[in-house]
Amino acid sequence: MKNKLPIGILGATGMVGQRYIQLLENHPWFEVAWLAASDRSSGKPYGEAAKWRLDTPLPERIARMTVAAAEPEGAPKIIFASIDAAYASELEPRFAAAGCAVVSNSSAFRMAPNVPLVLPEVNADHLHLIEEQSWRKQSGGYIVTNSNCTVMGPVLALKPIADRFGIEQIFATSMQAVSGAGYPGVASMDIFDNVVPYIANEEEKMEEEMLKLLGTLDGSTVKPLSARMSASCNRVPVIDGHTVSVSIKLVRPATHEEILAAWTEFRPLAGQQLPTAPDQPVQWAPQPDRPQPRLDRNRGNGMAVTVGRLRPCGVLDWKFTVLSHNTIRGAAGATILNAELLASLGKFRS
Amino acid sequence: MKNKLPIGILGATGMVGQRYIQLLENHPWFEVAWLAASDRSSGKPYGEAAKWRLDTPLPERIARMTVAAAEPEGAPKIIFASIDAAYASELEPRFAAAGCAVVSNSSAFRMAPNVPLVLPEVNADHLHLIEEQSWRKQSGGYIVTNSNCTVMGPVLALKPIADRFGIEQIFATSMQAVSGAGYPGVASMDIFDNVVPYIANEEEKMEEEMLKLLGTLDGSTVKPLSARMSASCNRVPVIDGHTVSVSIKLVRPATHEEILAAWTEFRPLAGQQLPTAPDQPVQWAPQPDRPQPRLDRNRGNGMAVTVGRLRPCGVLDWKFTVLSHNTIRGAAGATILNAELLASLGKFRS
Amino acid sequence: MKNKLPIGILGATGMVGQRYIQLLENHPWFEVAWLAASDRSSGKPYGEAAKWRLDTPLPERIARMTVAAAEPEGAPKIIFASIDAAYASELEPRFAAAGCAVVSNSSAFRMAPNVPLVLPEVNADHLHLIEEQSWRKQSGGYIVTNSNCTVMGPVLALKPIADRFGIEQIFATSMQAVSGAGYPGVASMDIFDNVVPYIANEEEKMEEEMLKLLGTLDGSTVKPLSARMSASCNRVPVIDGHTVSVSIKLVRPATHEEILAAWTEFRPLAGQQLPTAPDQPVQWAPQPDRPQPRLDRNRGNGMAVTVGRLRPCGVLDWKFTVLSHNTIRGAAGATILNAELLASLGKFRS
Amino acid sequence: MKNKLPIGILGATGMVGQRYIQLLENHPWFEVAWLAASDRSSGKPYGEAAKWRLDTPLPERIARMTVAAAEPEGAPKIIFASIDAAYASELEPRFAAAGCAVVSNSSAFRMAPNVPLVLPEVNADHLHLIEEQSWRKQSGGYIVTNSNCTVMGPVLALKPIADRFGIEQIFATSMQAVSGAGYPGVASMDIFDNVVPYIANEEEKMEEEMLKLLGTLDGSTVKPLSARMSASCNRVPVIDGHTVSVSIKLVRPATHEEILAAWTEFRPLAGQQLPTAPDQPVQWAPQPDRPQPRLDRNRGNGMAVTVGRLRPCGVLDWKFTVLSHNTIRGAAGATILNAELLASLGKFRS
Repeated sequence: MKNKLPIGILGATGMVGQRYIQLLENHPWFEVAWLAASDRSSGKPYGEAAKWRLDTPLPERIARMTVAAAEPEGAPKIIFASIDAAYASELEPRFAAAGCAVVSNSSAFRMAPNVPLVLPEVNADHLHLIEEQSWRKQSGGYIVTNSNCTVMGPVLALKPIADRFGIEQIFATSMQAVSGAGYPGVASMDIFDNVVPYIANEEEKMEEEMLKLLGTLDGSTVKPLSARMSASCNRVPVIDGHTVSVSIKLVRPATHEEILAAWTEFRPLAGQQLPTAPDQPVQWAPQPDRPQPRLDRNRGNGMAVTVGRLRPCGVLDWKFTVLSHNTIRGAAGATILNAELLASLGKFRS
Repeated sequence: MKNKLPIGILGATGMVGQRYIQLLENHPWFEVAWLAASDRSSGKPYGEAAKWRLDTPLPERIARMTVAAAEPEGAPKIIFASIDAAYASELEPRFAAAGCAVVSNSSAFRMAPNVPLVLPEVNADHLHLIEEQSWRKQSGGYIVTNSNCTVMGPVLALKPIADRFGIEQIFATSMQAVSGAGYPGVASMDIFDNVVPYIANEEEKMEEEMLKLLGTLDGSTVKPLSARMSASCNRVPVIDGHTVSVSIKLVRPATHEEILAAWTEFRPLAGQQLPTAPDQPVQWAPQPDRPQPRLDRNRGNGMAVTVGRLRPCGVLDWKFTVLSHNTIRGAAGATILNAELLASLGKFRS
Repeated sequence: MKNKLPIGILGATGMVGQRYIQLLENHPWFEVAWLAASDRSSGKPYGEAAKWRLDTPLPERIARMTVAAAEPEGAPKIIFASIDAAYASELEPRFAAAGCAVVSNSSAFRMAPNVPLVLPEVNADHLHLIEEQSWRKQSGGYIVTNSNCTVMGPVLALKPIADRFGIEQIFATSMQAVSGAGYPGVASMDIFDNVVPYIANEEEKMEEEMLKLLGTLDGSTVKPLSARMSASCNRVPVIDGHTVSVSIKLVRPATHEEILAAWTEFRPLAGQQLPTAPDQPVQWAPQPDRPQPRLDRNRGNGMAVTVGRLRPCGVLDWKFTVLSHNTIRGAAGATILNAELLASLGKFRS
Repeated sequence: MKNKLPIGILGATGMVGQRYIQLLENHPWFEVAWLAASDRSSGKPYGEAAKWRLDTPLPERIARMTVAAAEPEGAPKIIFASIDAAYASELEPRFAAAGCAVVSNSSAFRMAPNVPLVLPEVNADHLHLIEEQSWRKQSGGYIVTNSNCTVMGPVLALKPIADRFGIEQIFATSMQAVSGAGYPGVASMDIFDNVVPYIANEEEKMEEEMLKLLGTLDGSTVKPLSARMSASCNRVPVIDGHTVSVSIKLVRPATHEEILAAWTEFRPLAGQQLPTAPDQPVQWAPQPDRPQPRLDRNRGNGMAVTVGRLRPCGVLDWKFTVLSHNTIRGAAGATILNAELLASLGKFRS
């Protein structure tokens, strides 16, 4: 294990923090070396501080680690962060200023002009923005972010279509799992036998992050995709897996077969050997009633998104359903894949 | 009770059949006098033939009634029908030919040119189509239908907007309750912790019924609304209550206030004294996270629809969420309200 | 409304507080006149302070009432209380000392020797303990409690059996609804697709409250039933309604028919005209697969308990299943029924 | 793969049939070579005949296999069977008569005097009963069964206690997952927001199978454990995992520590190298609120049972909660483990 890169986790006791730990157990490149959480948890053994909610056992080694204070002192130089925006906006710059590569799932800096919002399959070139960050110049530290959990599935499904045919209008209606709200998150009294047609700030995030992710790097800035976009976000009684109904208007016409081909041929990371990257990031389900969260969320170890029901749209051109695992592909796995990309590009200091 | 109109129920043991019985208990005008179901049930006491799934007790009088064969002989002259389209297409004409007023929730004849598809608040004038039916001329019998359970909420919400501002594009994404699939209907293994993004024929029904309901009577035919429409239908783990995200493009611009006014001032049945008609058929929920099925489905005894989250749409003009109780407003209650309208118009023979 | 008794609610924003408001709307004897909650809510309109979670609308009059501080000054002389034991242990005595009749659903004083733990159908005579309270002597105030929500169903089912045949061993395994944990209460991440086989202190409460409720008043104290009792408590994914599997060993043998007769003939409040008392407090369900929470919890407006599946037990004598609505019969309705009993006995000062 | 033993599956399209396929993918000893199901499926490719409900993909090789008729002709000599008792009672003897080793999850012959009902960790010696079967003598074929899915968890937890301290009374109340009822199985309308306190014949099976499993081989017959037993079975809204509250009366007293030791030291298959056997078949969960189906059902790849909450019982001696994965340990995995045991004992003909 001595050759693995030591990783610190900021927000280690949260739902995404737990997923980092689960997914990094046996990771070939990275090793969890430091865990930080709120003051309430600091100083306690992780096994006591965290209420482990995953269905694989908490690794013994992790359970015995002491939760550190959320301070750069003593932290490793690579930090995975998933904390509330209010904390992130203060803490992540401090870690970056101290020379850390902050690979973040937090929302605080996703839309900052000099912070890359990256999905490796979609816009790896946006990582260039790192070089625009003052921390990078001073201490070597920087912030890289991945997107909101809901936009991830649609953006992966739309990227190959945008590349081939252009997209000028996007309609997305989400049905989101409760794990997206963290823990304790959604009260059972609020969501049993129910749909909640509102998630604070989610539609705004989905709309702006979609366009930045599909945007183009233009010198030292990202020019968002020029498309009209409308998102409607709903919470449904599902544990894991965000389902999104998507309709699009294309710039150039495409047939059913051409869109399927765009999806199945979409393998932008082929040959790069990133351990967490799925072979086939966008998987087509031919059955009429798929994708479904319970049956499809774990494809590609939770890193592949599943598309189905491609059919003509009576208002725009085409519509389909896309599903992604919101705490793996949409959060913890996204951070890890970003870190693997950064490592492969030599962006981590040894 | 001697002055009440005797009613027969075709499909009495199904989920909607049970709702008819529940909602007609203590109805001031109608009395359940005859129950028919499949051959399997015929001849048995209803209490034995039906697996009662509602949370109010099965009335003792009904439990003891014998289930009749599904034949016009011996049936009353007013029939509430909710049976599979395959059976309805054969049986409903036989009852109409025998002189019965068939007030139907079945889908078989909704789109037939001379069969009215009616919601009393929306298009009561379409009832004129009855006079075009050959049964009417020969035996006095006829068929009147109400719509699919999913289209009901959106159409009620859209009618006052269409009247004031015109609608040229409609986008609807549904999150539908399991009771809409009848009993046994959706297997728990299929829908626990899951979303099923497909309901057979539902999108087609929703699109065509919406446009017929919002259409205009033109002599002896209905001219559908000339609008582009796209429906995406999903099943979610909810017992009762269909939630629909709707976006619309208007012909003439409308402000937020004007749309709210269109909804709150929409009382087309005011003064008509129909017992099942809600005072306020479209109710505005001002909270940011409403409507919700568990909290709002029973408004107006399940006959009012709730709208909320009216906000600008990035692709079309406005978007909002609408909720309706699918087995009351969307099925059994719709049939009963149609029957009340027919009774008030003198369309039932004594 | 001027002749109704004014009622104050301590803990008005909680789940049980909301049920008090719902059940007292249109109550013939009582009128909600004062609402108190935690400091956080105090001073706000109730409609803003409370997150209303019930499926009937919050009455407008209540929504506009200002939440008062939880202090006896200005409070009415009848207080319905449902607050955490830690607060109740300090607050309820202050209200009693100030001359209030505190009719409480809180657990703090249920087992206090001079506080009656009462279900009107079971042990109305225990109310005599009021006279042993020092507050009663000094200010006229007192505390009366109802039991834990889980014990309520079994104790109603067991009382008529205990009276006729004697009970010497009781085994109870509960499957409890999430509403019993209040709001936000049980996190959806904890209970979706899950059973939690533990509820803090619940088994202890169930065991000791059962024996006190079935105990006998002996001068100025209650002698608990002398029986062995074992409770196992589980949380299941149900919104409302606690289901309990019960096995018992009797002192004197009883046949199946004799037990059914004990239940159906159990009408201890007949003739007393208490508005909230159900005609038939223990209702027998003859179907093999009942009672079920979704289908039976609302019997008797949520105040009747349903028993079913009476059959011989291979270890003790008889076993059966009992169901009760935990926030109506098991909480808010129990307090109201206790208050009705107190009113009918002249224990409220005008 | 040429050295693997070919396996046939009778009932291949059902829920347990699907689990056989899932669990045998990559099995080191066995290979699925033949699939049979009802006449309706026979002749179709498996991928078309089965509605795959598991969250791992249906293997391509299996999807393309043609479903055979349920006849011994052409079937391999090892048959895994999981079919309705009515069919099993006719079909399983025909396969045994044709020389097949029928390793069965069906209930038809579990209680037959000369058919072993076996859990390898509990009563491997009962396999001797095979030799009493007439088929064995004539054709070499035989029937071996595993138990009902609900009894499996308790019997594994009780075996080490019975061995050390003796058990004379057993009380078990189950909270069972919907997957136990197969597919489509439990209707969502029956179990959403609900508990069903009845499963046909389940209590009887649980009681009699428990005592046979814990019984002793006495020459050519099994003498059931001489204990009083009472089972109460409930269905709860859980996908996979049966939770059982158990209370026991011991013959000889045991301390908390002694019972924990009995569990943790229980490794009856240690050293036997059966691929599907978990290292630790009974795993103790020290947390106060465990075991829980969602968090613990996959321990030991679904083959370990989890015990927790050991505490004194007010009626008997000790009580605890036990959880097992009902379609893995309780069904498909149990058959496979029985087959591994048979293979290791040389009971399969090459």
